[in-house]
Amino acid sequence: MAGSTYGTIFKITTWGESHGKGIGVVIDGCPSGIPLCEDDIQKYLNRRKPGQSKFSTPRKEDDKVEILSGVFEGKTTGTPISLVVMNTSQRSGDYSEIASYYRPGHADYTFDMKYGFRDYRGGGRSSGRETIGRVAAGAVAAKVLEILGVEIHAYTRAIGDFVVTDEYFNMDDVFSNPLYMPSGKVADDAAAYIEKVREESDSLGGIAECIATGIPAGIGEPVFEKLDANLSKALVSIGSVKAFEIGDGIKVAKMLGSENNDSFTTADGKITKSTNHAGGTLGGISDGSDIVLRAYIKPTPSIFKTQHTINKNNENIDINIKGRHDPIIVPRAVVVVEAMTAITILDMMLLNMSSNIENIKKIYC
Amino acid sequence: MAGSTYGTIFKITTWGESHGKGIGVVIDGCPSGIPLCEDDIQKYLNRRKPGQSKFSTPRKEDDKVEILSGVFEGKTTGTPISLVVMNTSQRSGDYSEIASYYRPGHADYTFDMKYGFRDYRGGGRSSGRETIGRVAAGAVAAKVLEILGVEIHAYTRAIGDFVVTDEYFNMDDVFSNPLYMPSGKVADDAAAYIEKVREESDSLGGIAECIATGIPAGIGEPVFEKLDANLSKALVSIGSVKAFEIGDGIKVAKMLGSENNDSFTTADGKITKSTNHAGGTLGGISDGSDIVLRAYIKPTPSIFKTQHTINKNNENIDINIKGRHDPIIVPRAVVVVEAMTAITILDMMLLNMSSNIENIKKIYC
Amino acid sequence: MAGSTYGTIFKITTWGESHGKGIGVVIDGCPSGIPLCEDDIQKYLNRRKPGQSKFSTPRKEDDKVEILSGVFEGKTTGTPISLVVMNTSQRSGDYSEIASYYRPGHADYTFDMKYGFRDYRGGGRSSGRETIGRVAAGAVAAKVLEILGVEIHAYTRAIGDFVVTDEYFNMDDVFSNPLYMPSGKVADDAAAYIEKVREESDSLGGIAECIATGIPAGIGEPVFEKLDANLSKALVSIGSVKAFEIGDGIKVAKMLGSENNDSFTTADGKITKSTNHAGGTLGGISDGSDIVLRAYIKPTPSIFKTQHTINKNNENIDINIKGRHDPIIVPRAVVVVEAMTAITILDMMLLNMSSNIENIKKIYC
Amino acid sequence: MAGSTYGTIFKITTWGESHGKGIGVVIDGCPSGIPLCEDDIQKYLNRRKPGQSKFSTPRKEDDKVEILSGVFEGKTTGTPISLVVMNTSQRSGDYSEIASYYRPGHADYTFDMKYGFRDYRGGGRSSGRETIGRVAAGAVAAKVLEILGVEIHAYTRAIGDFVVTDEYFNMDDVFSNPLYMPSGKVADDAAAYIEKVREESDSLGGIAECIATGIPAGIGEPVFEKLDANLSKALVSIGSVKAFEIGDGIKVAKMLGSENNDSFTTADGKITKSTNHAGGTLGGISDGSDIVLRAYIKPTPSIFKTQHTINKNNENIDINIKGRHDPIIVPRAVVVVEAMTAITILDMMLLNMSSNIENIKKIYC
Repeated sequence: MAGSTYGTIFKITTWGESHGKGIGVVIDGCPSGIPLCEDDIQKYLNRRKPGQSKFSTPRKEDDKVEILSGVFEGKTTGTPISLVVMNTSQRSGDYSEIASYYRPGHADYTFDMKYGFRDYRGGGRSSGRETIGRVAAGAVAAKVLEILGVEIHAYTRAIGDFVVTDEYFNMDDVFSNPLYMPSGKVADDAAAYIEKVREESDSLGGIAECIATGIPAGIGEPVFEKLDANLSKALVSIGSVKAFEIGDGIKVAKMLGSENNDSFTTADGKITKSTNHAGGTLGGISDGSDIVLRAYIKPTPSIFKTQHTINKNNENIDINIKGRHDPIIVPRAVVVVEAMTAITILDMMLLNMSSNIENIKKIYC
Repeated sequence: MAGSTYGTIFKITTWGESHGKGIGVVIDGCPSGIPLCEDDIQKYLNRRKPGQSKFSTPRKEDDKVEILSGVFEGKTTGTPISLVVMNTSQRSGDYSEIASYYRPGHADYTFDMKYGFRDYRGGGRSSGRETIGRVAAGAVAAKVLEILGVEIHAYTRAIGDFVVTDEYFNMDDVFSNPLYMPSGKVADDAAAYIEKVREESDSLGGIAECIATGIPAGIGEPVFEKLDANLSKALVSIGSVKAFEIGDGIKVAKMLGSENNDSFTTADGKITKSTNHAGGTLGGISDGSDIVLRAYIKPTPSIFKTQHTINKNNENIDINIKGRHDPIIVPRAVVVVEAMTAITILDMMLLNMSSNIENIKKIYC
Repeated sequence: MAGSTYGTIFKITTWGESHGKGIGVVIDGCPSGIPLCEDDIQKYLNRRKPGQSKFSTPRKEDDKVEILSGVFEGKTTGTPISLVVMNTSQRSGDYSEIASYYRPGHADYTFDMKYGFRDYRGGGRSSGRETIGRVAAGAVAAKVLEILGVEIHAYTRAIGDFVVTDEYFNMDDVFSNPLYMPSGKVADDAAAYIEKVREESDSLGGIAECIATGIPAGIGEPVFEKLDANLSKALVSIGSVKAFEIGDGIKVAKMLGSENNDSFTTADGKITKSTNHAGGTLGGISDGSDIVLRAYIKPTPSIFKTQHTINKNNENIDINIKGRHDPIIVPRAVVVVEAMTAITILDMMLLNMSSNIENIKKIYC
Repeated sequence: MAGSTYGTIFKITTWGESHGKGIGVVIDGCPSGIPLCEDDIQKYLNRRKPGQSKFSTPRKEDDKVEILSGVFEGKTTGTPISLVVMNTSQRSGDYSEIASYYRPGHADYTFDMKYGFRDYRGGGRSSGRETIGRVAAGAVAAKVLEILGVEIHAYTRAIGDFVVTDEYFNMDDVFSNPLYMPSGKVADDAAAYIEKVREESDSLGGIAECIATGIPAGIGEPVFEKLDANLSKALVSIGSVKAFEIGDGIKVAKMLGSENNDSFTTADGKITKSTNHAGGTLGGISDGSDIVLRAYIKPTPSIFKTQHTINKNNENIDINIKGRHDPIIVPRAVVVVEAMTAITILDMMLLNMSSNIENIKKIYC
């Protein structure tokens, strides 16, 4: 239970280090009969690739995915889908120095405390490259969800103080700027600010938001396996995420019940809620509204300013981190948030199938 | 997988409805040799009991716990510990009307969509009484953690706009006011505000905070089973929690890397961090600092104002909820937050035991 | 993970010791909408009750089951079903001596090695009374399976050398003799032999067989979660079971492929196999034929002959076990075998629901 | 939950089809600090390779394993170990005909019933090549167990009527004959018989036996997760295994209690049992004796005699299977039995670490 497996029915297992031979994921429990090819996955991976804009690291990573099993004649067979991305552009020479000390904000120290030593090259298993497996699996989950009428979209809601307010929000803008912000205007301003922060050898944080539509009411389990609880774990399990919200989130602490409750209403035989403060769940179960999530992401811990830390000889030292590092994690994390949301929602939809006898009879009687 | 089981090694299974015969929990995987009696558990349950102050419902619930198995001659045997609280003061007559409609902010509608019908008496399984099992199990986890030098304390950090700032923070005050706030002064002000909101037939939200001390570095698994990811699920799985933070939490979105990174430092052979923005984890693994968590809790959905909703005949109606309901959930949720944190941390400490061969040799060689 | 939880979707957690306050089970993941009352469960429990014939212990155990949660207005709600049997007739005085030594064939020694001490009264958690929780849960599983057209029947196939051959096999006889043998004739002979063995202060073993009918083809997962693999675990997890067979079982080691292969054949649009050497599974997945299982059960370890063993002071001693003990376990184990088979098959039927996209569309599209 | 993941702490996930791009396994939860190289794994894989003797198929399969992650500077890091064997010698042309019908004794029919279609090339996921992942993981488990003083050895106990009796048993012979029998004499006789059966276009079954030594008392969980129950699942999950025994196994059905009970005895401070009818477990927990297991393996279902079956158009047909097939599975299954035993025992040793507070204190206090 080193925790590289996630999900109950749609179950993924990721593996790989930044500078090992490759990174991959095995998806077990994907239903048979889903059309799937490498392009379906590659287009998701491309969204997390660095080197696409000046705001992300200039490393060239091809990150070409290969399907090794579980697909036959263009469709999933129901057996494990093994996906691999071989590492091609890693230069181990860059990382020899960091073997000797513990970088602030990184997992160097905690890995050593847990395991006794670590693969220090490029962060090893704690590198952002670990998310390749998540994104590849998320692409497959999205293919299944599409058949079921569920769509999931994530984007950058804020970078530092640059927040896309509802007024400026335009989903069409998301793919037209390298920050994946739903506002070209805010994206331009944020870009200028990122540039300024980078010149100051610093980094900055932001907010990724995710909306899932088309989920029927009734998904999620009422106690520990609440839909929102699992989505919370899904998002906080992504490196650098320090807070999670659903719906009005932190605002509920200052709201009155009369402001926070969503009224049910019916028209033309269709039940809706007049508002969606809840963000799509009640009692941990989907209510048929959009699921609305937010992940608060910390600034890149690798900064180029001089920092204080300790080395493996337990001495106080000052360090200057070198190498290629994004000044901001958020834009590349957006697709990871989307992937983890897709995997979690699909898994809970599959788990829900047996919740009542009428559903079971549809299959067996 | 209806999701009433939680944990991998220290595994709890809760059961029971608000107005059924009782509520309980089975704890499987508690180590043998822990001194345990009913009083150890009762004192935790008393902290979530209603009827203790004017800010909580005047219902009289005795909530007496009984140990049915797993303890012999005063110590845990390693086999399942079954804990039961029989329901004694429930009056089913109060709840007959709500069978016919869906209360805003409650799980009535989502339960019906999932299961086809529901036990509508007092919220059934989605009642706050469900947390009795969590708190009882948390009391047992706390007993084990105490032996290992780990302490966990939760309290009310904010009620509506009444926040206990660091300046006013005094842990000694927590048990001296019925709101469990670490400031008598802020508690008094908040109490007056709660009274005003209650008179307006409304309810309000707040923030529960939790600090865990004494956790060694190295606890937590690096990918999906990050310590913070599991703590996030643990807290968001509590009814009414809509956001989760660890350390600086939502603030990281507006911080620079140079502000957010915690420097490691060493003195007298002891490694510490000069700050704790991270809230005690790096890369999902504990770093030896305090774990600092926050749960944002929505206002009680049962308010006495007239509300719009639909009934089971799919008609728009206006309703006036009756009965006994707290105007605020937070003070009673504090011990639930503490319990879920304890259960999660203990489980991950047990899981971590086999992370390296040196530990394993301590047991077997 | 003390291993008192079993199943993935239909998940049961048992608790309780022989001489504690009670024994119980929590069933989580039972679909909603199943008619269920205490009598449904009691009639299964009565089949494992002692004191029903001269071949089982004269202890009077009422073993009255009570449903504490999860059933509302006569139907399961989908939330956890808590079932309890309070212990009423245990006399702790009988068992004080065995605290000091390790009985051959019992778990006394292994419990002490694992946990450091044990509840020695009546075997504690390793008592045969532990199976009450299994049987109660099996009764619920059988209710669900009945709706899906699946029936499961277990009986005593052999006691010592007294085997019910196919020639004498008559299912109608099973409930007409206290040994649950499908042959009144063989049962009479076996009964006389049991009496003889009992008079010699000894005990004897036998075989429980179980047949499950009506299972559609396609149930079971192809690698580790094979239907037969899980059934094997289910049966060997019952105390005293030392071997498991499916279909021709041990005989296959001496068969030729041409003898062992079952031919598929079709008539009137219906596919069958002309033989069922496989016992109903191919590649771990049900093939639409009957599932045929056998559990080989050891003689009762508590015998009244003088035996050699050691005590807790690590001294060699001779002991004479006293008390009330069946000379044979098999007849009372029959219903446990049936229960574990039902739980396992139901769980795998629920797990299979999402194996292909066409099934999923039946629920969600 | 398509069931390609096995284990709780030492958790393996296998993937791959006979004629896909490759076969592999991800091991999550292997402790850090274990010396590991590809040769450690290759020597296990070589034992299951075909083409080594005239009794196994003449296919040339290189089956070269590659470690893709989880090992750094020659030692396991504690993060997932990804092992891959690329498929090199598969000729898909051989298998086009079997796409149209259901071979007796194979999983063709059940896969189609479950998934709607199947990868029919060489059996796809239900091919014996699936065991490559198990064996590779078993090699890693064996490396860890070696450090803990546990050794596991499997061999062919019987082929058809040719059984190695205790009289002829010589462990040294196991690796000196291609049938892995612990008797050169019996192996010679069995070899002649296999040759005869092959010439008759038929196949035959046998028994694999496995002995595990050095396991401390106290391993295994007392109810559902009994050590023997998990070993039973482990072995029956191997394709073609139709029965499982521990210790005296099926013989217990005909034994008296006085014959079956093992006496404890003590000498020089060391506790042993004077016999080992139990096969090393009592109440599901190891008792410090050798674990002795047997798997009964059916004849190869692919035989060259004409067989009756149906095709996908639901027509009765006669078929003649072609291709390269072993007349007996047992010798190649021996290392799979050993691997599954090693994985299961290691996992349960790791799970047991937290069973009592004294063990936990050794790590944390």
